[in-house]
Amino acid sequence: MMKNLLLFSTLLVLLVTCKDNTEQETSTPEKTNAFAIVIHGGAGNITPENLSDEQQAEYKAKLTEAITIGYTVLKAGGSSLDAVEQTIHVLEDSPLFNAGKGAVFTNAETNELDASIMDGKTLNAGASAGTKTVKNPISLARAIMEKSPHVMLSGEGAERFAQEQNLELVSPDYFSTEKRLNSIKKIKEAEKKETTAFLLPKENDWKFGTVGCVALDKNGNIATGTSTGGMTNKRWGRIGDSPIIGAGTYANNTTCGVSSTGWGEFFIRAVVAHDISALMEYKGMSLKEAARKVIQEKIPKLGGDGGIVAIDHWGNIVMEFNTSGMFRASMDENGTLNVHMFKNQY
Amino acid sequence: MMKNLLLFSTLLVLLVTCKDNTEQETSTPEKTNAFAIVIHGGAGNITPENLSDEQQAEYKAKLTEAITIGYTVLKAGGSSLDAVEQTIHVLEDSPLFNAGKGAVFTNAETNELDASIMDGKTLNAGASAGTKTVKNPISLARAIMEKSPHVMLSGEGAERFAQEQNLELVSPDYFSTEKRLNSIKKIKEAEKKETTAFLLPKENDWKFGTVGCVALDKNGNIATGTSTGGMTNKRWGRIGDSPIIGAGTYANNTTCGVSSTGWGEFFIRAVVAHDISALMEYKGMSLKEAARKVIQEKIPKLGGDGGIVAIDHWGNIVMEFNTSGMFRASMDENGTLNVHMFKNQY
Repeated sequence: MMKNLLLFSTLLVLLVTCKDNTEQETSTPEKTNAFAIVIHGGAGNITPENLSDEQQAEYKAKLTEAITIGYTVLKAGGSSLDAVEQTIHVLEDSPLFNAGKGAVFTNAETNELDASIMDGKTLNAGASAGTKTVKNPISLARAIMEKSPHVMLSGEGAERFAQEQNLELVSPDYFSTEKRLNSIKKIKEAEKKETTAFLLPKENDWKFGTVGCVALDKNGNIATGTSTGGMTNKRWGRIGDSPIIGAGTYANNTTCGVSSTGWGEFFIRAVVAHDISALMEYKGMSLKEAARKVIQEKIPKLGGDGGIVAIDHWGNIVMEFNTSGMFRASMDENGTLNVHMFKNQY
Repeated sequence: MMKNLLLFSTLLVLLVTCKDNTEQETSTPEKTNAFAIVIHGGAGNITPENLSDEQQAEYKAKLTEAITIGYTVLKAGGSSLDAVEQTIHVLEDSPLFNAGKGAVFTNAETNELDASIMDGKTLNAGASAGTKTVKNPISLARAIMEKSPHVMLSGEGAERFAQEQNLELVSPDYFSTEKRLNSIKKIKEAEKKETTAFLLPKENDWKFGTVGCVALDKNGNIATGTSTGGMTNKRWGRIGDSPIIGAGTYANNTTCGVSSTGWGEFFIRAVVAHDISALMEYKGMSLKEAARKVIQEKIPKLGGDGGIVAIDHWGNIVMEFNTSGMFRASMDENGTLNVHMFKNQY
C-alpha cells in the first residue's frame, strides 16, 4: 500500500510537470476584437527633442487620417486587403513618411521604391522592388499578387507591368522632397570625411520611415502591407526587407500579420515577420511574447534595430520596437484610436 | 482500493499520452557526421524517359565533380562557405544546369541571374538579383555579404558593385546556350496559342534547374548557397525564391542549412527554408520530419512543387522533393558519395 501510494504520487508529480509544458505550448490569449487595424510610419531616433510640437501634430493628424480610412473599410465589412491598400495610399501620398512621395534618396540621388502585400487567407503575396515611376507601390504589389503569375517583380520590368495594369505612373521627380534631398547631401558630405557615414547614428535617423499596415476584417482574414523608399544613401540597387515576404511583410490567418520597419539588412537575416508567426504557431507563444522575443532579443543581438506592428487572428494588436520611437496608430472594432510616436506611450 | 486502482490507471494513461507528445517534440537524431556536403541541380520532370543514358552519365559526372571539390575543402579543414562557393562555381560554369552558363531565357530572351549565400554561424547573408554580366553570381552574393553594408543588391547596381569588387564579368551572351534558346522559342510559340503557356506542365520541365549547396564544416559551421537563372519565360524583372533569404536559402548553426529548388513563387509564399529551420527549433522536429512537412504537405497544398537539400548541425543529410526527380548528390565525412536524379533512388 505504501509503495502503491509512493508510485501514485510520483505519477501525479510527473503528470503535473508535463501538463505545465503542454499548457505553455497552447497558451492562447482571448479573442479581443472582431476586426482591427494597426499602422506604422517608421521606427528610429524619434524623440520629443527631434520633433517640434507642430511636427508632432502633423504626424498625428496624418496617421489618424490614414488609419481612419482603413477602419471605415473594415467597419463597413470590407476586406483587410482593401483596408491595407487604401490606408497605405494616404501614407505613400504624404511627404512626411519614407514611402511614395517623401521617399529618401539613394546614393545616386534617385528615389527607388519597394513594397509588398500578403493575404493571410490564401498566403498569396506580391512585391515590387526598385521602381521609380509608380505613384503607389502598394497598389503595384497588389496587382502583382492578383494579376501576374509571379510574386516579386523589380526595376523597369515592374514598371512595364504597372503600365500594362494601367496603374498611375508619375515622373521620377514626383517623389523628390527638399527635406530628403538635404538629408542625402548632408550624408554624402559626411561620407567624404568618414567612410562609414551610412552607419553614423545621427545620419541613421531618417534611414527608417517605412510605412506598414496590418488589418483583420470581419471575415477573420488578415492582410499585411509595407511600403518604403528604403535606406537613405542606399546604392547598387540595394533591396531592403520591405519587399521580402517573411522579413518585412507576412500574413497568415492561422497566426498573425506582421509589418516591419527598421534596419532592413538585420530584418532580412532574422526573417522577422515569419519568425514571429512561427514562434506563435510552433512554440505556442502569444503574439506579444513572439514580437518581444524577436524585436527585443534577436534583432539587438544581431546588432540591428527597428520595430513591427502586428495583429493576431483573435484581433490582439501589438506594436513593438527597440528604437527611441516609432510612428504608430491602432484602432479596434470599438473605434478606439491610439496614436503615438515616442517610447512608453500607450 | 478499487477506486484507488482506477484513478491510478487513469493517471498512467494520461501520463503515457503526454509522454508521447513531449517525446515527439524533443526527438533529436544522433550526430552522424563531423562534416558533410549536399548539392542539388534542380528538381522537376526528371525521369528516365526524359534523359538518355548518355545525358544521365553527363549529369552524374558533373554533380560528382562539383561535390568532390567541396568535400575536399571540408576534409582539409576549410570553411563551409568556401566549400559552398567553390562547389557552386562548377555547377554555374556547366551548361547542364539553370545557373551561370546555361541559365534559362527570360521572355525578353535575356539571361538574368539570381543567387544568395548565408553563413549559419553569424547569420550574415548576401544576395543578388537580375544580373546579366557577372560570371559567377554565387561569388557576387558572397562579396555582398562580406564587403557591402547590404544583404541584397539588384540589376545594374549589383553589376557595378561586382565591378568595384573586381569579380569576373562576361558579355551577356556568355550565358546563352542553344538548348535554352530553343526552349524559350518553343514556349513563346505555345504562348501564342495558349495564354497560360508558362503553366503548361510540359513547358515546366526546365523551369526548375536551380543549383544549390549546403555544407557543414569541421568547426560545426553550416553554410548554404543557391544560384539560378530563374524561370524560363520570366518577365517584368521577376525575382524568384533563390535570392530570398528564408525562402530559397537559409543557414543557422543552431538548426540546419537549406537550399531550395522549384516553383519559386510558392517557395517564397511558404518561406520554405526558414520554415524548415523553425519547425526544428520551435517544434522539436528532426530535419527529415520538418522537410517532409514543408515539401510533401505545405507546398503541394499551395499548388506548388519542387524540393530542397539540407544538412542539420549533427550532419544529417536530407534531400526531399515532390517532383518526379531532382538532380542531387551528397558526401559524408567518410567520403561516401551518393549521386541520384530520379525518385526512389537512395
